[in-house]
Amino acid sequence: MASIKDVAKLAGVSPSTVSLMLNNTGYVSAETREKIASAIQTLDYTPNELARNLSKNRSNLVGVIAPDVTHPYCGTIVKYIDLYLSSRGYKTMLCSASSSRSTDLEYINMLKRQTMDGIIATMFHPDVPIDVGKPFVSIDGDLNGHIPVVMSNHRQEGEIAASLFLKNGCRHVVHLTSNKTWRTLALQRNEILAETLRQNGALVDVIELNNHIAESSYLDKMAQLLFDQYPDVDGIFGSELFLCHCQNEAKMRGKRIPEDLKLIACDGTFLSDLNHFTAIVQPLKAIAKKSVDLMVDLTKGKQFEQRVYEFNVSVQKGETTIV
Amino acid sequence: MASIKDVAKLAGVSPSTVSLMLNNTGYVSAETREKIASAIQTLDYTPNELARNLSKNRSNLVGVIAPDVTHPYCGTIVKYIDLYLSSRGYKTMLCSASSSRSTDLEYINMLKRQTMDGIIATMFHPDVPIDVGKPFVSIDGDLNGHIPVVMSNHRQEGEIAASLFLKNGCRHVVHLTSNKTWRTLALQRNEILAETLRQNGALVDVIELNNHIAESSYLDKMAQLLFDQYPDVDGIFGSELFLCHCQNEAKMRGKRIPEDLKLIACDGTFLSDLNHFTAIVQPLKAIAKKSVDLMVDLTKGKQFEQRVYEFNVSVQKGETTIV
Repeated sequence: MASIKDVAKLAGVSPSTVSLMLNNTGYVSAETREKIASAIQTLDYTPNELARNLSKNRSNLVGVIAPDVTHPYCGTIVKYIDLYLSSRGYKTMLCSASSSRSTDLEYINMLKRQTMDGIIATMFHPDVPIDVGKPFVSIDGDLNGHIPVVMSNHRQEGEIAASLFLKNGCRHVVHLTSNKTWRTLALQRNEILAETLRQNGALVDVIELNNHIAESSYLDKMAQLLFDQYPDVDGIFGSELFLCHCQNEAKMRGKRIPEDLKLIACDGTFLSDLNHFTAIVQPLKAIAKKSVDLMVDLTKGKQFEQRVYEFNVSVQKGETTIV
Repeated sequence: MASIKDVAKLAGVSPSTVSLMLNNTGYVSAETREKIASAIQTLDYTPNELARNLSKNRSNLVGVIAPDVTHPYCGTIVKYIDLYLSSRGYKTMLCSASSSRSTDLEYINMLKRQTMDGIIATMFHPDVPIDVGKPFVSIDGDLNGHIPVVMSNHRQEGEIAASLFLKNGCRHVVHLTSNKTWRTLALQRNEILAETLRQNGALVDVIELNNHIAESSYLDKMAQLLFDQYPDVDGIFGSELFLCHCQNEAKMRGKRIPEDLKLIACDGTFLSDLNHFTAIVQPLKAIAKKSVDLMVDLTKGKQFEQRVYEFNVSVQKGETTIV
């Protein structure tokens, strides 16, 4: 295989001139450019990305921490992040083995070792120190004061959900929360939901779910548990995937939707469209785009202007509520 | 930041001895190892992965071409491939922007430039030449005689589906096929399905879908088209995601499932469990594992023993057929 030296020799220039042209890092005259281009073509020269990466000290890879791409929320956010990263010349390194302190520590080590230029995390263990002076963007997670956060307006989400349940006459709402370990700001929606409902005399109960786990058997078991524990539940707020299991369980127990039971989904992915759920739609495309924009800025040494970027949600009326 | 030279100096050895130990590429005495380890700890030395990659001429990255991770088939296969790659010390580089000649050509160029060590493709444009002497594994696609293929036994899948439709008394079956451009061996199931049904006097029609596109609006339109074009359809064979849309459309048109219409899913992912579809289950975990095993062998210079690795499917009886 031809090397950069072969190209330089054939073009009658120095290897560093070829490098200047290929990396676009300095002035090369039009005449010289033409000679180099012709030599590259003649020799069928392909630059070795590993060498280029080393010389630029960049991998052009961004690690995306998302525990399970078969979970509609994770899959959707990964899809859009990958789309925007690609359009900016970066590639996505999938980091799925998340949810433990040790795997997240390993991702930070990879970041230190230059395996990737930065990390965008949808979940990250709060006990793992991130202060390695490398680009890091968090979605929903309040990790520390130096890490920018991109998120939906979860307080607004909680307010809207509460108001919808009340308008639909619900008196006993069960909502699913993610594991509190993760210090996710998505928990804000649950606090406001519970507070507003209680102020209006409704009963509120909480079931804690393992984040973003898409295993059917697990979700089935949790749906059964919900109806066993709270047989008079008349409103459920949770992720679409879990609501699908609740829908099945409700049918088996003879509960009619929306007459006896109202369901409101909290992500608003394709699974809400498919199942005609009433949903609070998170603007996942906008969140992905802002995360990528921040990441690209950080890899270029720019600083972020705000620490928290918040996006408004919207409501999609489906068939699982009356109004 | 400390360099390998600093470590060598403090340990009183040559930089190449440190390199031998770190890369495990030669004998280093226990005593020397201890000195080096202690110097690494004292200096908080982190090896630069970019330099290591260049010296080994490896990135430890495998490109996984899968057009849309929100499609349950794609998401599931990517999840398992990533799991197995991680367990073998590799990372997944997501290659989602597939489905055109130019993007697939770009992936081949990245492979040539050493951006990744190999490619596992669930879809690949048959016109793009792959003969670059680099590891490449195809799932389902018959690309050329030098590329190993890992797949479900799609003939068996077609036979089982045909026999199920006949046992359920279906007289007019519509099946969805993927776009023929892709030269996917999954088309075998459709040929056998159609042949067997026709031999038994049933009517068979085909609708061609864009592969692995999970957009709700597109699938909704195609489901409407199906019932408009074939109002007397009594059996549908296709991916779970499309069957969900067919289920909704059937409900709107007053068709009862399974009394008036039988649905059989052809992937058997979590969406079949969720919707209680009768499904032909592809062993996606086994397919992912074999693809990764082949990939790891190829990156180590080993040759594959067979060109085609075929895995048997199984049936999961749900509520969308009578028997």
